Amino acid sequence: MVLIAEPVDEYLVESQDSKGKLINGTPKQGKTQNILSKKLPGEQNLVLRTFRILVADLCQQFKGGHPGGAMGMGAIGVALWKYVMRYAPHTPDFINRDRFILSNGHACLFQYIFLHLTGYKAMTFDQLKTYHSSRVDTLCPGHPEIEHEGIEVTTGPLGQGISNAVGLAMASKHLASKFNKPGFDIVSDHIWCMVGDACLQEGVGLEAISFAGHMRLNNLTVIYDNNQITCDGLVSLANTEDVNAKMRACGWNVIDIKDGCFDVEGIAKALEASRSSSLPTFVNVRTVIGVDSAVAGDAVAHGAALGAENVSAIKKAYGFDPEQHFVIPQAVRDFFQELPSKGEAFVSEWNKLFAKYHAAHPQLAGAYTARLKGDLPADWESLIPKEFPSKETASRASSGLVFNPIAEKCDQFMVGTADLSPSVNMAWRTKEDFEPPHLGTGSYSGRYIHYGVREHVMAAISNGLAAYHPGMFIPVTSSFFMFYLYAAPAVRMGALQHLQVIHAATHDSIGMGEDGPTHQPIELAALFRTMPNLLYIRPGDSEETAGAWAEAIKARHTPSIISTSRHALPQLTGLTRRSEVFKGAYVLEEVADDTTAELTLIGAGAELNFAVSVAAELRSKHGLKVRTVSFPCQRFFDAQPHDYKRRVLRRQSDTPVVVIEAYAANGWERYANAAVCMSTKRFGKSLPGPKAYEFFGFEQPSMVRRILGYLNDLRTDPNLKHDFVELTYVRKEE
Amino acid sequence: MVLIAEPVDEYLVESQDSKGKLINGTPKQGKTQNILSKKLPGEQNLVLRTFRILVADLCQQFKGGHPGGAMGMGAIGVALWKYVMRYAPHTPDFINRDRFILSNGHACLFQYIFLHLTGYKAMTFDQLKTYHSSRVDTLCPGHPEIEHEGIEVTTGPLGQGISNAVGLAMASKHLASKFNKPGFDIVSDHIWCMVGDACLQEGVGLEAISFAGHMRLNNLTVIYDNNQITCDGLVSLANTEDVNAKMRACGWNVIDIKDGCFDVEGIAKALEASRSSSLPTFVNVRTVIGVDSAVAGDAVAHGAALGAENVSAIKKAYGFDPEQHFVIPQAVRDFFQELPSKGEAFVSEWNKLFAKYHAAHPQLAGAYTARLKGDLPADWESLIPKEFPSKETASRASSGLVFNPIAEKCDQFMVGTADLSPSVNMAWRTKEDFEPPHLGTGSYSGRYIHYGVREHVMAAISNGLAAYHPGMFIPVTSSFFMFYLYAAPAVRMGALQHLQVIHAATHDSIGMGEDGPTHQPIELAALFRTMPNLLYIRPGDSEETAGAWAEAIKARHTPSIISTSRHALPQLTGLTRRSEVFKGAYVLEEVADDTTAELTLIGAGAELNFAVSVAAELRSKHGLKVRTVSFPCQRFFDAQPHDYKRRVLRRQSDTPVVVIEAYAANGWERYANAAVCMSTKRFGKSLPGPKAYEFFGFEQPSMVRRILGYLNDLRTDPNLKHDFVELTYVRKEE
Repeated sequence: MVLIAEPVDEYLVESQDSKGKLINGTPKQGKTQNILSKKLPGEQNLVLRTFRILVADLCQQFKGGHPGGAMGMGAIGVALWKYVMRYAPHTPDFINRDRFILSNGHACLFQYIFLHLTGYKAMTFDQLKTYHSSRVDTLCPGHPEIEHEGIEVTTGPLGQGISNAVGLAMASKHLASKFNKPGFDIVSDHIWCMVGDACLQEGVGLEAISFAGHMRLNNLTVIYDNNQITCDGLVSLANTEDVNAKMRACGWNVIDIKDGCFDVEGIAKALEASRSSSLPTFVNVRTVIGVDSAVAGDAVAHGAALGAENVSAIKKAYGFDPEQHFVIPQAVRDFFQELPSKGEAFVSEWNKLFAKYHAAHPQLAGAYTARLKGDLPADWESLIPKEFPSKETASRASSGLVFNPIAEKCDQFMVGTADLSPSVNMAWRTKEDFEPPHLGTGSYSGRYIHYGVREHVMAAISNGLAAYHPGMFIPVTSSFFMFYLYAAPAVRMGALQHLQVIHAATHDSIGMGEDGPTHQPIELAALFRTMPNLLYIRPGDSEETAGAWAEAIKARHTPSIISTSRHALPQLTGLTRRSEVFKGAYVLEEVADDTTAELTLIGAGAELNFAVSVAAELRSKHGLKVRTVSFPCQRFFDAQPHDYKRRVLRRQSDTPVVVIEAYAANGWERYANAAVCMSTKRFGKSLPGPKAYEFFGFEQPSMVRRILGYLNDLRTDPNLKHDFVELTYVRKEE
Repeated sequence: MVLIAEPVDEYLVESQDSKGKLINGTPKQGKTQNILSKKLPGEQNLVLRTFRILVADLCQQFKGGHPGGAMGMGAIGVALWKYVMRYAPHTPDFINRDRFILSNGHACLFQYIFLHLTGYKAMTFDQLKTYHSSRVDTLCPGHPEIEHEGIEVTTGPLGQGISNAVGLAMASKHLASKFNKPGFDIVSDHIWCMVGDACLQEGVGLEAISFAGHMRLNNLTVIYDNNQITCDGLVSLANTEDVNAKMRACGWNVIDIKDGCFDVEGIAKALEASRSSSLPTFVNVRTVIGVDSAVAGDAVAHGAALGAENVSAIKKAYGFDPEQHFVIPQAVRDFFQELPSKGEAFVSEWNKLFAKYHAAHPQLAGAYTARLKGDLPADWESLIPKEFPSKETASRASSGLVFNPIAEKCDQFMVGTADLSPSVNMAWRTKEDFEPPHLGTGSYSGRYIHYGVREHVMAAISNGLAAYHPGMFIPVTSSFFMFYLYAAPAVRMGALQHLQVIHAATHDSIGMGEDGPTHQPIELAALFRTMPNLLYIRPGDSEETAGAWAEAIKARHTPSIISTSRHALPQLTGLTRRSEVFKGAYVLEEVADDTTAELTLIGAGAELNFAVSVAAELRSKHGLKVRTVSFPCQRFFDAQPHDYKRRVLRRQSDTPVVVIEAYAANGWERYANAAVCMSTKRFGKSLPGPKAYEFFGFEQPSMVRRILGYLNDLRTDPNLKHDFVELTYVRKEE
């Protein structure tokens, strides 16, 4: 490693002292930040110059993108990719590679350019130039995407990447704890995560920091691109905390780098040192946004191209030809040229180690190899109970009955809860907690995770666990359904990345009762039923809960929410069938002669039993020919063949379809003509569960009355069939 | 004030040191925490005993609720309501009252009992006993609700209350800065917020802490019920940070209380001292959950009744008759009896002060009185431009054109952004920033708020601003629409509490372009269109943007999201009408003869212009009789009379309705038969805006082709009219 430059104190940006007072000023807006390269000799100087010009050129090409942050991070990139990280550009999926996460994903050019320079084959020079282009086959989208070589997770929404990094670090810790043996550190990868100011302001990022500190994830290094600039201007407009003191209070090792734009050696030493910390490490690197440009240190460098004149000026100052674009001198290519072979050496070294490990610990090596393949034990489905007690059972309890035996036997599952262990039934009898060993309450071999009251990062960390290696982990989260609104941005990121995470969401209807409207998820199902590549499954009893878990586990590229009740539900034995859940909806009770059915009644989840009992009443007391349909998952149903869907719903015969569900009806219009549902005119109400149902008109006589009224209205107003009708009800007493 | 008890060191629960090591142990599970009352003489002892027994009785009555936390907080309650807070039980809305927020809302009995004891008239003894009952008129729901006397905000979802408290403190700071004059501190209320462990773990709570520290809100005191127990057991299972050091790093004053269960005097002194801090204050009070019960210090005391035997045992140990329930000795009533008259003295003192203020500063007093009434200036609507430039204009720019003049002139508006000032156009030319004066960048008189990259707390703080006094503030937030998923739990809490907050959400379609799928809100509208009491308004051009803002401002008890485009939209002059926005949907172009219309084409928001141009093409090239409908707000439309709705949609005439919108179609089934929409099979794509539209089939020839195909299919398959058809399209190139 060569010394690049002396620390350049005149553009040092100090953090704030504990009283929130700015020490030593903040970066001035505009030209005062120009430091140019006068102090920097050597080939690294050329590398940094080339990198910054390339960023500027690539943004200027289509007059967009985020140049400033990437430009300021050049020295960090050289330290990481040239000196510190262990990875293999020509074997990008090398299992023991260090993982790099760009949590400030908008600075993606930073990563793309280093992927190109270090020899990732997919990231050709031609590809690099597709950034912000109209090319649909671009590998350089506006934020890094997991599908592409060298990218570990998709980032963009701020605070997600750092949370994913925590999950990756946990995955590595867990595997190391389980599989490493003396002399055989077959799992020894390190997680490097780059963050900007925003990831340290977002709540989910703060949850991640607190949790990673608690868990003592010393295989995690977070590198802070501390340029003190966000879109609005100086960070000090919105944040003046003492970030280093805060990180230390959260249990992190903190290292300061003063000259982050140029001090490659200092950065590399700090990063390398972080590998041997007993705590996760936070490297606070002072940089200058848009360094050496006319807008250095200014917020305008953040999210817009610098302008042709400015780009030209940088090139001139750097000794480049302003007329030439996308120039990478051979010396720069040479600087990185040994990295692919260095990477292959890592790979073959590890392969040799693993071969010896296989000889010394054949059983462990076999288990590890099986995990690598992502296969579940062949008999996992047989672990699901064939039958259930006939007594009324809350579907959250059914979830436990179904899944606990699987969790116990299948090491893939990392099961966590946002502090609701007593309520969600996800803890199996013999579970060990995932905890740092020094606390004495568990170990990194544990697979049950106490996330604390941190729903958002629980889901985001689970995405990281799932992203470690395809199929190696199936993370399970758990909380009340309502609180998945806190977690929703991370649930979305999992769906977007095709990461299998199973979310066990309980207390999913107004039947959850006394906790009241803040906890009753009236409108929440509409979100998750609409979210692409997510299965929202609402089983109606234990039998359907068995089907729900089986399908969620089989969906290896799709996250699921299994949505269950707090309260006891009757077992609809003989009606419900686990094998039908994957169809999304199926006929429970048919009317023999197609043409004479007078009503199809849909029920879902905790209210499925209402549909069955209302149908029985309509048949026995009112002589109506009523079909019933169980509808646990709209997404599954939508994927069924057209014919099947028509057979289930029979709307073509003009038989009216009414759905019973204690949510807002929005979304059911596709399958039904009317709904016994919650109104969108108000939220729920704090009452004991049965009383809450009653209050909102879910008692049987009231449902029967309103459905009969609707059928009558249909007869008198022929146009009503074109309208979707909400059969809502609120008592007058309130 | 009387000394209640010596600090009892043996049950001191120390926080952790900076290395995350537990000092001095954590509370043991079970009986070891029993300390009983042997050390406590005096009437306060009787008050504390009575309070704890009452909590236990009220939970035991219906065998549910959250007893443990409330029991442990008794001494804090006595300190607050008896000694420290300035409030008026008989004038609960006294404008200069101290505000109390129970952020750990599940401990609501704590608040209900003190409201009863201190003389709030609505909280009768009879009402107290309705906790967890079936009484629909209860004032004691499972979490505190804003509708009820003495409750400032609805809490429950953890981390929301502390964020609301920050908003209340900002409201008070702002008013004080604007209206106080030497000798006339007419605004001098203090905000007290109780939190448990969870509010310090939730991301939104951590955002609130960081932001309040930055803003130096020294009129805010957060009291931490540090019982080190959550649902899962010891807090140390999930959190071992040094909370005091973290709070200091965030710019807070920290006070420690060791004997939080009994040291009323110590607590009261600490709270009183916090009034004169120059920073917000964090009072870390060590308590014992379920103190003096058999489950003291145990997680089982958190969320379930203690059991009859245990309740009985506490009564015996406390010298109460175990056979008697809900006993409040007269001495306890006497202890609190002076509080109503003390409160009325505060009121009359303030009234006298205000009368003098009125004489000395008539103009300011008049302005203050107007603000109290919540009236906007009579001419506010005339500030909206009558016309707009005819050039294509992004609706986010239209938002600025419409709202900036109103924000500038009307002091009610507190306008903030989650660090997207350059993108959201909410900053008016003469704005002053709301900042702590010592930073030199603004003052508390400012009305433009840099929230940092903290969308969630931005919305939660805005709820607090709106809750300060009805109509006194209209907070406005701004960010990209996608990031309102981060803020959604707080948006929901605003809707639930009928708090007017306007959310200016920009970049609301795939037309936002290169930032890609993480930023493209495919499924998000379905959530907000379903959320009760929320207006999600998507204007199609400047004219409709004028209508959207006018309606959002008129909705004094309903939050709104005004959802606008990043990209330029054509002005549909002569078609769009601002006065129709409140109807939710209206006919743009009619077909004269009702019976011959062949198609109704709905457009919304950024894609409204697509509907107009596709309709023109279908008319001119294909001779179809096409009607067009603009549909900016489903909630508004749902509220229209039945006849109006049928007149707009004309579904009764079997004219097919097709909607064009670049979101998932879920929710449109109620109004349309088919949709040119995004598929729920995938997320968006990083491409320049127009290319993204094209990629997903929103180019005119493609839309025309698919709509014609659909009309043809309708003719050949008569059953198709019963199905909702998605006319989605993904190019093959990818």
